[in-house]
Amino acid sequence: MPKSIAITMGDPAGIGPEIIAKAFRDAPALTRHCFVAGDVDTLRRASHCIAGPGSVALPVVVLTQADEALDVPPRCIPVLQATKRQGSIELGVVSGVAGRMAGDSVVWAADAALRGEIAALVTAPLHKESLAAAGAPYDRFPGHTEMLQYRAALARAVPVAELPVRMMLANQLRTVLVSIHVSLREAIDAVTRSNVLETLHITDKALWALLGRRPRIAVAGLNPHAGESGLFGREEIDAIAPAIAAARAAGMNVSGPIAPDTVFMRARAHDGAPGEWDVVVAMYHDQGLIPVKYLGVDTGVNVTLGLPLVRTSPDHGTAFDIAGTGRADPSSLMQALRVARDLAALPPTKGG
Amino acid sequence: MPKSIAITMGDPAGIGPEIIAKAFRDAPALTRHCFVAGDVDTLRRASHCIAGPGSVALPVVVLTQADEALDVPPRCIPVLQATKRQGSIELGVVSGVAGRMAGDSVVWAADAALRGEIAALVTAPLHKESLAAAGAPYDRFPGHTEMLQYRAALARAVPVAELPVRMMLANQLRTVLVSIHVSLREAIDAVTRSNVLETLHITDKALWALLGRRPRIAVAGLNPHAGESGLFGREEIDAIAPAIAAARAAGMNVSGPIAPDTVFMRARAHDGAPGEWDVVVAMYHDQGLIPVKYLGVDTGVNVTLGLPLVRTSPDHGTAFDIAGTGRADPSSLMQALRVARDLAALPPTKGG
Repeated sequence: MPKSIAITMGDPAGIGPEIIAKAFRDAPALTRHCFVAGDVDTLRRASHCIAGPGSVALPVVVLTQADEALDVPPRCIPVLQATKRQGSIELGVVSGVAGRMAGDSVVWAADAALRGEIAALVTAPLHKESLAAAGAPYDRFPGHTEMLQYRAALARAVPVAELPVRMMLANQLRTVLVSIHVSLREAIDAVTRSNVLETLHITDKALWALLGRRPRIAVAGLNPHAGESGLFGREEIDAIAPAIAAARAAGMNVSGPIAPDTVFMRARAHDGAPGEWDVVVAMYHDQGLIPVKYLGVDTGVNVTLGLPLVRTSPDHGTAFDIAGTGRADPSSLMQALRVARDLAALPPTKGG
Repeated sequence: MPKSIAITMGDPAGIGPEIIAKAFRDAPALTRHCFVAGDVDTLRRASHCIAGPGSVALPVVVLTQADEALDVPPRCIPVLQATKRQGSIELGVVSGVAGRMAGDSVVWAADAALRGEIAALVTAPLHKESLAAAGAPYDRFPGHTEMLQYRAALARAVPVAELPVRMMLANQLRTVLVSIHVSLREAIDAVTRSNVLETLHITDKALWALLGRRPRIAVAGLNPHAGESGLFGREEIDAIAPAIAAARAAGMNVSGPIAPDTVFMRARAHDGAPGEWDVVVAMYHDQGLIPVKYLGVDTGVNVTLGLPLVRTSPDHGTAFDIAGTGRADPSSLMQALRVARDLAALPPTKGG
């Protein structure tokens, strides 16, 4: 029996609920077996918000457990109440109440995934300040990743440090980052043999599951021209190449270190042709994010690798400035759903 | 009376001569008033190399001075012998003789530009190892930029340090780099108020000449999210923002520091629409080169800013592996010619 996919509603003051409602309206095959973990009132409002003049809003179907999503007909929005009902939340405004509702939804879905009740979670955007304003336990988490890592460590009864995670960004290019939100100086310090090798292990395992075969991994250098044999920096020689050698010895298909200014171009799939590699391991945040975002952010997807659950998300924020206008673009969320289906090995969608 | 543009032939063992011959063959309007500074025998061979079976090679017209290029009919290759004739140079092989011929051509064209005899120079690629093998004076120059800087300093009788240069890369995006071939750690050290401000002055002046109006300049941050107010690094606060403030006080139109992972996407011109800014100042080599190269290198152009001469070049190398096959793509060289014409304020080309 298949399992369902939970879409967490994100901050109820942002565009999350609207783009979710649009996905259920516009992509019935893609949203089949999916449901919203969140708040029934918020999704009712979102459904009305996106209904054009004269057209009927999609009905909200209230679920009491995840597997009921398997039987919901298309063009409904199945919602499981994952947080306390709070009445109407003001749109576009930071609030602790909204932050708590968003956080509760993520915790519910994470725990359901860890218990094996759902196949994957797709997370609509949180607002960092609302999450901080929600107080304990949410004010200690900078974002989704740390919250998921914490719930997974709790479920396994291990320290958080034993569940290393990496962020993957995916569109025409897939890239996994060795480090994320640290200064560039600290990011250089994090380019160690063990961090690069750990990234390679996580990447190999996750992409193997996604592709159904061992992935071809490229590793970017850190310095211009990958250091030109030590002429401009030694991290390639001292850390990156040894990590690659160890990964190869473990059976992985890894190339590199490759000059950062060409590896992403070469890995990019375009005009129907695949890139030279399935994924590029990037040494720091902007090395990977500049190329992934360069063509526009509407179809990018974030995937959290390394956790004992499948989680994807759109690569944009809550867009408080346009929340409630019905103008928000659901394509990144829909792409996140596609990738989650692939990762969870759900049947492919036709016309989704 | 207009001035001509010199195209230096590059390393005679590489693809430079072929792509130059293709430009004269395929783009008569674009190559009008242009000539090759180099070697007559090398260009004759290149002309034969690109002639298809049964078709006649373009004739080489031997010039004795630069302004004769103004009277050469289309579909000829005007060549000024700028180095000693050496007979046939073996293709695809590193050699000091080839390096010297390439270096002589650049020195000749640089001096002609500095004397005001030509409007601009467009440089076909050098091979670093051949240049080093050529011995003095060429073995002290890592590449074109340092050679041009040295000749300009000599002509002005000033130390090289008084002629700071910056590299600009241009295609759908223009980006000027604060530093180039140094390790990423050293590049971070080079992000000082004075280096960023100097880059802004050079950029403002050069783009003003190119666009005929004051340019809109964006400055990228150094750290992820431009540091998020000091959370991930302080270079934005300590160096970049003060440089921007000083540039604004001097009348420049400057925005930033902007998150590196979105500034290039926002500055990219596409689908006929201009980007949000005319140029992005990038803090290090790969920050600027990753986006410029991401869509493929065939139409990228390098421009050397800060010197008292106009110099552009294609953004690829000598491609020894395909030299002499006639397969090399001239589009980046042709784009370099277009940009040189714009910078030198030559009449625009129709159908070129």
